[in-house]
Amino acid sequence: MKKVLVIHGANLNVLGRREVGVYGQQTLEEVDGLIAEAAKSLGLEVKFFQSNHEGEIVEKVHSAPGQFDAILINPAAHTHYSIAIRDALGAAGLPAVEVHLSNIHAREEFRARSVTAAVCRGQICGFGPLSYTLGLQALKAILEESG
Amino acid sequence: MKKVLVIHGANLNVLGRREVGVYGQQTLEEVDGLIAEAAKSLGLEVKFFQSNHEGEIVEKVHSAPGQFDAILINPAAHTHYSIAIRDALGAAGLPAVEVHLSNIHAREEFRARSVTAAVCRGQICGFGPLSYTLGLQALKAILEESG
Amino acid sequence: MKKVLVIHGANLNVLGRREVGVYGQQTLEEVDGLIAEAAKSLGLEVKFFQSNHEGEIVEKVHSAPGQFDAILINPAAHTHYSIAIRDALGAAGLPAVEVHLSNIHAREEFRARSVTAAVCRGQICGFGPLSYTLGLQALKAILEESG
Amino acid sequence: MKKVLVIHGANLNVLGRREVGVYGQQTLEEVDGLIAEAAKSLGLEVKFFQSNHEGEIVEKVHSAPGQFDAILINPAAHTHYSIAIRDALGAAGLPAVEVHLSNIHAREEFRARSVTAAVCRGQICGFGPLSYTLGLQALKAILEESG
Amino acid sequence: MKKVLVIHGANLNVLGRREVGVYGQQTLEEVDGLIAEAAKSLGLEVKFFQSNHEGEIVEKVHSAPGQFDAILINPAAHTHYSIAIRDALGAAGLPAVEVHLSNIHAREEFRARSVTAAVCRGQICGFGPLSYTLGLQALKAILEESG
Amino acid sequence: MKKVLVIHGANLNVLGRREVGVYGQQTLEEVDGLIAEAAKSLGLEVKFFQSNHEGEIVEKVHSAPGQFDAILINPAAHTHYSIAIRDALGAAGLPAVEVHLSNIHAREEFRARSVTAAVCRGQICGFGPLSYTLGLQALKAILEESG
Amino acid sequence: MKKVLVIHGANLNVLGRREVGVYGQQTLEEVDGLIAEAAKSLGLEVKFFQSNHEGEIVEKVHSAPGQFDAILINPAAHTHYSIAIRDALGAAGLPAVEVHLSNIHAREEFRARSVTAAVCRGQICGFGPLSYTLGLQALKAILEESG
Amino acid sequence: MKKVLVIHGANLNVLGRREVGVYGQQTLEEVDGLIAEAAKSLGLEVKFFQSNHEGEIVEKVHSAPGQFDAILINPAAHTHYSIAIRDALGAAGLPAVEVHLSNIHAREEFRARSVTAAVCRGQICGFGPLSYTLGLQALKAILEESG
Amino acid sequence: MKKVLVIHGANLNVLGRREVGVYGQQTLEEVDGLIAEAAKSLGLEVKFFQSNHEGEIVEKVHSAPGQFDAILINPAAHTHYSIAIRDALGAAGLPAVEVHLSNIHAREEFRARSVTAAVCRGQICGFGPLSYTLGLQALKAILEESG
Amino acid sequence: MKKVLVIHGANLNVLGRREVGVYGQQTLEEVDGLIAEAAKSLGLEVKFFQSNHEGEIVEKVHSAPGQFDAILINPAAHTHYSIAIRDALGAAGLPAVEVHLSNIHAREEFRARSVTAAVCRGQICGFGPLSYTLGLQALKAILEESG
Amino acid sequence: MKKVLVIHGANLNVLGRREVGVYGQQTLEEVDGLIAEAAKSLGLEVKFFQSNHEGEIVEKVHSAPGQFDAILINPAAHTHYSIAIRDALGAAGLPAVEVHLSNIHAREEFRARSVTAAVCRGQICGFGPLSYTLGLQALKAILEESG
Amino acid sequence: MKKVLVIHGANLNVLGRREVGVYGQQTLEEVDGLIAEAAKSLGLEVKFFQSNHEGEIVEKVHSAPGQFDAILINPAAHTHYSIAIRDALGAAGLPAVEVHLSNIHAREEFRARSVTAAVCRGQICGFGPLSYTLGLQALKAILEESG
Repeated sequence: MKKVLVIHGANLNVLGRREVGVYGQQTLEEVDGLIAEAAKSLGLEVKFFQSNHEGEIVEKVHSAPGQFDAILINPAAHTHYSIAIRDALGAAGLPAVEVHLSNIHAREEFRARSVTAAVCRGQICGFGPLSYTLGLQALKAILEESG
Repeated sequence: MKKVLVIHGANLNVLGRREVGVYGQQTLEEVDGLIAEAAKSLGLEVKFFQSNHEGEIVEKVHSAPGQFDAILINPAAHTHYSIAIRDALGAAGLPAVEVHLSNIHAREEFRARSVTAAVCRGQICGFGPLSYTLGLQALKAILEESG
Repeated sequence: MKKVLVIHGANLNVLGRREVGVYGQQTLEEVDGLIAEAAKSLGLEVKFFQSNHEGEIVEKVHSAPGQFDAILINPAAHTHYSIAIRDALGAAGLPAVEVHLSNIHAREEFRARSVTAAVCRGQICGFGPLSYTLGLQALKAILEESG
Repeated sequence: MKKVLVIHGANLNVLGRREVGVYGQQTLEEVDGLIAEAAKSLGLEVKFFQSNHEGEIVEKVHSAPGQFDAILINPAAHTHYSIAIRDALGAAGLPAVEVHLSNIHAREEFRARSVTAAVCRGQICGFGPLSYTLGLQALKAILEESG
Repeated sequence: MKKVLVIHGANLNVLGRREVGVYGQQTLEEVDGLIAEAAKSLGLEVKFFQSNHEGEIVEKVHSAPGQFDAILINPAAHTHYSIAIRDALGAAGLPAVEVHLSNIHAREEFRARSVTAAVCRGQICGFGPLSYTLGLQALKAILEESG
Repeated sequence: MKKVLVIHGANLNVLGRREVGVYGQQTLEEVDGLIAEAAKSLGLEVKFFQSNHEGEIVEKVHSAPGQFDAILINPAAHTHYSIAIRDALGAAGLPAVEVHLSNIHAREEFRARSVTAAVCRGQICGFGPLSYTLGLQALKAILEESG
Repeated sequence: MKKVLVIHGANLNVLGRREVGVYGQQTLEEVDGLIAEAAKSLGLEVKFFQSNHEGEIVEKVHSAPGQFDAILINPAAHTHYSIAIRDALGAAGLPAVEVHLSNIHAREEFRARSVTAAVCRGQICGFGPLSYTLGLQALKAILEESG
Repeated sequence: MKKVLVIHGANLNVLGRREVGVYGQQTLEEVDGLIAEAAKSLGLEVKFFQSNHEGEIVEKVHSAPGQFDAILINPAAHTHYSIAIRDALGAAGLPAVEVHLSNIHAREEFRARSVTAAVCRGQICGFGPLSYTLGLQALKAILEESG
Repeated sequence: MKKVLVIHGANLNVLGRREVGVYGQQTLEEVDGLIAEAAKSLGLEVKFFQSNHEGEIVEKVHSAPGQFDAILINPAAHTHYSIAIRDALGAAGLPAVEVHLSNIHAREEFRARSVTAAVCRGQICGFGPLSYTLGLQALKAILEESG
Repeated sequence: MKKVLVIHGANLNVLGRREVGVYGQQTLEEVDGLIAEAAKSLGLEVKFFQSNHEGEIVEKVHSAPGQFDAILINPAAHTHYSIAIRDALGAAGLPAVEVHLSNIHAREEFRARSVTAAVCRGQICGFGPLSYTLGLQALKAILEESG
Repeated sequence: MKKVLVIHGANLNVLGRREVGVYGQQTLEEVDGLIAEAAKSLGLEVKFFQSNHEGEIVEKVHSAPGQFDAILINPAAHTHYSIAIRDALGAAGLPAVEVHLSNIHAREEFRARSVTAAVCRGQICGFGPLSYTLGLQALKAILEESG
Repeated sequence: MKKVLVIHGANLNVLGRREVGVYGQQTLEEVDGLIAEAAKSLGLEVKFFQSNHEGEIVEKVHSAPGQFDAILINPAAHTHYSIAIRDALGAAGLPAVEVHLSNIHAREEFRARSVTAAVCRGQICGFGPLSYTLGLQALKAILEESG
């Protein structure tokens, strides 16, 4: 069974408890529940990791090769400036998919630009928690394709 | 059964017959087959439309309300400059999802910018034909949510 | 009696049926009725043309010299990028006036820039259907002035 | 009878006496005569005000609410940098229309940008003195609409 | 007793009478009352000056050395383009503090840039009339420090 | 005998009938005559295609492989913004040469930038109809080289 | 008694021990002493937190709601790029005031831009430790106003 | 005897009394004395005008034709943004020379750009009061040349 | 017989001996041979000049009028920054054609911009040595046209 | 014996295990071995520190004065955006040298810009592990020079 | 008697023989005659140097200290990009004045920017040959002032 | 014994005799002495070349292959704009290292950008003459590595 590391970036730990108008009422635990369920039905094993620390995300990505087959990441605020996370993803060499809860093209100008997406296979944004499960399906297909 | 209009933009009619290294070997017909299959399993009805004419896409979008419940669109090259398609999507008022076969963040600088995504619910890029079927799932969820 | 070609650009055919909050409740037919009425009182003959196709607008402008004495145009979305329409207007050589229903200076940044206005005599924006009838008056005066 | 304050910005007092090739041979008095005539036929009362002082224009705009129902303004050179006049117009809250004698899109690059138009209902440019009378008609319609 | 010149820039004379949603319901007189009160408790003498004329503000600043020990200034709209006021403040050489009623970082892009703040000791924005009294305290400290 | 598809973009159908000062007095038919004559002497077969519709040009380019050995294209106004034509040329994979009647470096700033030239073998501009026949010679050499 | 969380960003722990010419001779402890004193006289309770880690600041801000009524923050170097801290402040929803020891408008160009100020109530800069105590007063007023 | 209007812009009235390190110790009266002396030896009549008000400078320029044969102007801070003064100089049509005491190319970036110089015959900067007398010589030559 | 000066700019003397993958295997002597041959068949006389020194190219251009009827120039690296060569070509007043071996639109961003092309009749790029002989033909036609 | 703190930034802990094509096959331990050896021969004592956490690097730099005489730093990804590390280096006041394994001028555009180099003595890039040992020599010389 | 080195940059050797409409009918020899005459009356000794070679100008500037007391330079085209000449002037340390025949603010955008003026005492432009003699006077005054 | 060509760019011949505060007191001869000494100890043969002429540097680089094994270059002022030197280095194909005496990141904005570094192996800046000897060591290692 293929293993996917699911990384939630900065501020996602307060999901569902703050700004519910923007990010929805589901907590990160509930979102993780949905992802776990989707993973199960896709025949994937998932592990969750949340951090507000760029360095911890970098290191989690470092630890992935060998332990995981792919990465599903919502770099959140760091999407827009963390070259460190970009470099970590590039170095890891695992297939990665970037996801966002909100539509980054329909918010402030600076949110439309991603420095991390270029080293991922693709990006999914705008569908709330569904962005994650769609990303998981994408990874499933990528993993199957590469055998 | 909810109906989804699937729009393929400029140059997608030659899919699978040109630049297979970049866009894959599947033809548009094969991609449409995959989409149809996915739609069936999702309980959605899909109609396909391809055009290399910005104006035809604008008009197809105009005709959608009443006939369709949602739009799945790959604006292709027009993604980056067609304010006309953006305005058509905005005027139609139907939930729309933008998809791209390739990862627009990992190509030429000008491809990372979308003028149409801001009036869609979200964007999915980088997964080949799978981008479409993931987009369809997203629309399914959006339609269910709004009742 | 001087003849004026009235050109409505992309998406204007759905006027009054979509986004009535932004563009008003009048349909294009009603707007054309107002323009026709204004033309009559100004002693001008008007013909209407709407298209969502840049190419059709270019060709309509090409056909204008000889048949019309002036052009009243709302290039809509194409205002902001269609160098083809700009060149067509430049080549036609007829006095032209650009109009917009909404105030292009009070919307998204990209709407404030017009690539077509530089080859027109002037621009009127922000007054809903009245923008057209004011434009018609301007053309009337321009035609009288040039004899 | 509704009252309209007509404001002529910097350098307009030398109209018709300088650069007649660019701005026409009519003096400001003659232009005001045309505006007055148009106002009469529209059933509007107009008062004229010209100043080369940004501060005086700001204060005239301040004084307008209560005394006038609308403002017709040609901010001239200040169009392009006077945030003070913009703020005054915004604070006054009266319907305002911006007019220009010349086509600001067909001159130096810096003249195409207006910092004041965003707080006006619309903008009319390029028709010489006629820009004013068309603006007056626009205000007439705006005033009637708002009852 | 140290004397502070309080300068209110363009449009501040209509404070409390316009756009109360944005700037609050207090009039400039009331704001001056609050400042006077604060000054009294700080052991400072204040004089008020309001002008919508850039030139008058420049000259008031010129007149300050000798008559005043410090300047508290809200350059309002001129904050963003008046190099003349900047140069006047630079020439005066008195300690100056720039204040703004609203948070200039949370409004239009062009309001975040100040050409005058660089020649002041500091800037306080976003607290309504309190911005002035906090600025007064800052000046008090600066004056005490420099003996 | 090698076949070359000659594509004339937007507004070129009015050549010789408008703006003769800028584009010369020859009509498109006359230009085509010159091209045909040059082709004959080069031992090439040429077919002409003119369109003011971006979509038609895209599709004509799609149809070229198999029917033609090379493309000679004057994308006219679309040179500066049509990523759709760029992508069509890229997908076609035929050797293409871009030509312009006028010197695009000696006109408005925006005309110096070509989004289509990067996917062509080269670009020739500034020589009137001769730009086309020179382009034909270039294609002749390219075709001979590739055997 | 209302509680205010005082956050000192990166490098502020070496205050008073480095670059005393720029930032003054007071240590962070001494600054905290001044703040505590001011808080006491304002009837506010303050807690201090310093971190050089963006992630720790994000998490401290997360923990604030419920424990604190407001936030006084000097994001220091992170002011200019930490969208993560911006998002944390936005999510927390508590009234926040941004302060800086130095005048950010009178240093390197890149220091004048704040990505965090837009989600704060206001910003105070340039007054050394006094910036903090003025910020505390601002928060006091904000808290009283909102009851 | 030809007459030259000498205009000193904003803040020049405090010359020699402020920032003597930058602008020198001579007062405006002393500078005027030097200019008068130079004028005398050149056989020119000079009148001096200083204002901190953009509008007064505009109007002084308006009044020049008929009364003066040329203009010598130091627009000071307004050099960099006053399109109103630019337009006034353009409308006046008199030969004008722009002068600056300091070298505008060796100060802040924004001081290197002049919006007024384009409508003057030339510009002289960097030589203190000598900039004026050199400008006077330039005007003398220009006046002689044009007869 | 008309005479054409052929100028090869910087680094072209090492042609065919370096980077043959990019610039082809022909040496400059061989290219000159091809040009000479083409000139002969066109009834033109050509002289060759190569220099890696901007100043020498400037002076060669200066010497051309009187000795030559036209200039064929490949400014190479200097294309992108040598205003001196631009000015020399402008001053010479002879018809000039700019050529490039490679397609300047398909290389680094900075190579797409030419500061010299604006003062030439046209530009040809991308065809290797053929760019020169096509340029020669263009000059032949230009010379014949102007008699 | 002078002591040098060697700081390796984000992602350098995976050196030699990832992307060996870009960064070489040596691990960080091996690089440290080379540095240690070089240090020994230079008569310097070195301590190594690697972190993926911006905040830890900031704090390590804080701790350096007193314990170390100089800093040799490869800020890696943080080179391009960490103003926090820049400020820490500035505050530390120790001579610092910035090094990079790869040539930052020959990679993505955004890697050519360093926000940290301005507060270092110099920068060395492009030589793999040798960049470090050259940097060490530079520091040796700097330390000897300053006695 | 103080000695001034007069440097004429690229293309100035063809002065008066080309583009007389722009640069006047006087040859460089005639201009030098005027300068010599002016120098004589000012009690200055002048030597002339013209070069189209950036490197020769750099070296002439190098040779100036010791032989000359000041430099009068028209860097012509190199004004806009030659950092080498800028650095030479900076290194020479002699007072220098930059002159231009034409008004660089009233021509192409790129001519308004000078990279060399920042290291000169001042700049004079727009007065034809008179720019040089005015520059000479400026140098005379600068030399006298510094004793 | 491997041979290295050492190239000193514009203005470096006056090293040690001008601006000693910035560039140090050592003359170029002394610097060359240091380099020669370092070369000797590294077992390298060095030849020195200094020129203020871009064209001479280009040609020296051309002559290097065959005569030299590597290039050590300080392009000085030309670093920032000489595409000709960049192209020469690219064409030569020898390993090259770029060095600078001063830290180009800590001076004027325009000095931080190098157009030549991208075609070198690496860049060393900020260490005075030591930059050269460190560069020599880098070349030594590069040459040994490539055998």
